[in-house]
Amino acid sequence: MNQRVNPLANIRVVLCRPIYGGNVGSICRVMANMGLADLVLVSPVKIDWQDAQKMACAAQEILAARRETSSLEEALADCVLVAGTTARMGLYRQHSASPRETAPLVLEAAARGKAALLFGPEDNGLDNTELALCNRLIQIPSTGEYRSLNISHAVMICAYEIFLASGVFEAVGEKSPQADTRTKEQMFKMWEKALLEIGFMGPDKAQHMMLGVRRIFARGAFSADDVRILMGIARQASWCAGQSAGKAEKE
Amino acid sequence: MNQRVNPLANIRVVLCRPIYGGNVGSICRVMANMGLADLVLVSPVKIDWQDAQKMACAAQEILAARRETSSLEEALADCVLVAGTTARMGLYRQHSASPRETAPLVLEAAARGKAALLFGPEDNGLDNTELALCNRLIQIPSTGEYRSLNISHAVMICAYEIFLASGVFEAVGEKSPQADTRTKEQMFKMWEKALLEIGFMGPDKAQHMMLGVRRIFARGAFSADDVRILMGIARQASWCAGQSAGKAEKE
Repeated sequence: MNQRVNPLANIRVVLCRPIYGGNVGSICRVMANMGLADLVLVSPVKIDWQDAQKMACAAQEILAARRETSSLEEALADCVLVAGTTARMGLYRQHSASPRETAPLVLEAAARGKAALLFGPEDNGLDNTELALCNRLIQIPSTGEYRSLNISHAVMICAYEIFLASGVFEAVGEKSPQADTRTKEQMFKMWEKALLEIGFMGPDKAQHMMLGVRRIFARGAFSADDVRILMGIARQASWCAGQSAGKAEKE
Repeated sequence: MNQRVNPLANIRVVLCRPIYGGNVGSICRVMANMGLADLVLVSPVKIDWQDAQKMACAAQEILAARRETSSLEEALADCVLVAGTTARMGLYRQHSASPRETAPLVLEAAARGKAALLFGPEDNGLDNTELALCNRLIQIPSTGEYRSLNISHAVMICAYEIFLASGVFEAVGEKSPQADTRTKEQMFKMWEKALLEIGFMGPDKAQHMMLGVRRIFARGAFSADDVRILMGIARQASWCAGQSAGKAEKE
């Protein structure tokens, strides 16, 4: 096994008898967003390819590279795992799992060979003969009131869970480090000084008022940048108070 | 605080200067799927309402109940928390978190008051003055190659994470209970008997072959229903072997 294989490259999105070009295009965009590229359409009905291109936006490459087959068996022939989606429940759909539960299994399979995510037609979903080809069934969480997702949103949920589970994505975290206690205490001292100097509080109320200020500022984690801004405000308020005091003395 | 409040009912989807009716309609469907209902459009540009109705499918009620405001401030006035989405990074976007991290905070706020999920226009997203009104920023995970999600898919990811975090959804698990060891051992005995009787293996190879059969069947968890099916196969094979033996004796 090649350790460097990217499992996302081994994941195929299979649309069984899709109807709407807009949905096919939307799905291409979703795939590009989530790092997938292999799209197969099984017996597409009467796709409006202009709609597809419009909704694919910058994912034209995936749309153009799509393959079409006349049978589902052909689309799945080389797959080691097939995960089919279903909104309905029934005798042969009871063992379905959530996208979050299924994602690691799909990735595990995709590390060894091709894995397929199978989606049925927009109107009726997969039928029982099509479900029979699935090793896994995925049921996407939804309210009981309106269970049926648009197909591109169903693809998004599955692709999103797999993309997250793949660990490829690294969140762009806060660039400025968290401020430490010493820095924050310096800031509070500067604020206390400034609030006294601008006459917001008298020395007798300072301790009490500063507890209030601390409470307000304690609600969020401060980055070093945040603390720099807050120190700047205190410094400027102190400067301003000094100016007006000097002016008052001159007058 | 009313303990019985459904936080999902307190979550508002705010679309700032949306452009495409199809997207607005798709968002209504997404909201219905994920248990949300409160939609506000801020200064919609030139919405094609027919497109919106078409894509809303069975979520016409949410579309019809939408409100429109001419300013973002008005749309957010009564909200205790505003979580804005952004695809771009920049000085004022560094402290963004993922939808999964943000979902519990949104629900917590929605237990106390209105909480808004804010989405910018399809072309450029939220600008800095709009971002300034947000308490939280959400960055949706995506590949570096194609970061920009269709707005309805961005709404879906956020709504899906909140819906899951709300705990409202109960997965329809396997209805048939897991089979226990005793039942499974009975099944293996029946298979061993049947495989001997149909002549699949001789008594000298039985133990070895049954290890192979056990290995195959060990790969998945069996429900009680599964075991009943497998026992039925063995029983029928034994019956069939008896029939053909009887027939051979007669001949």
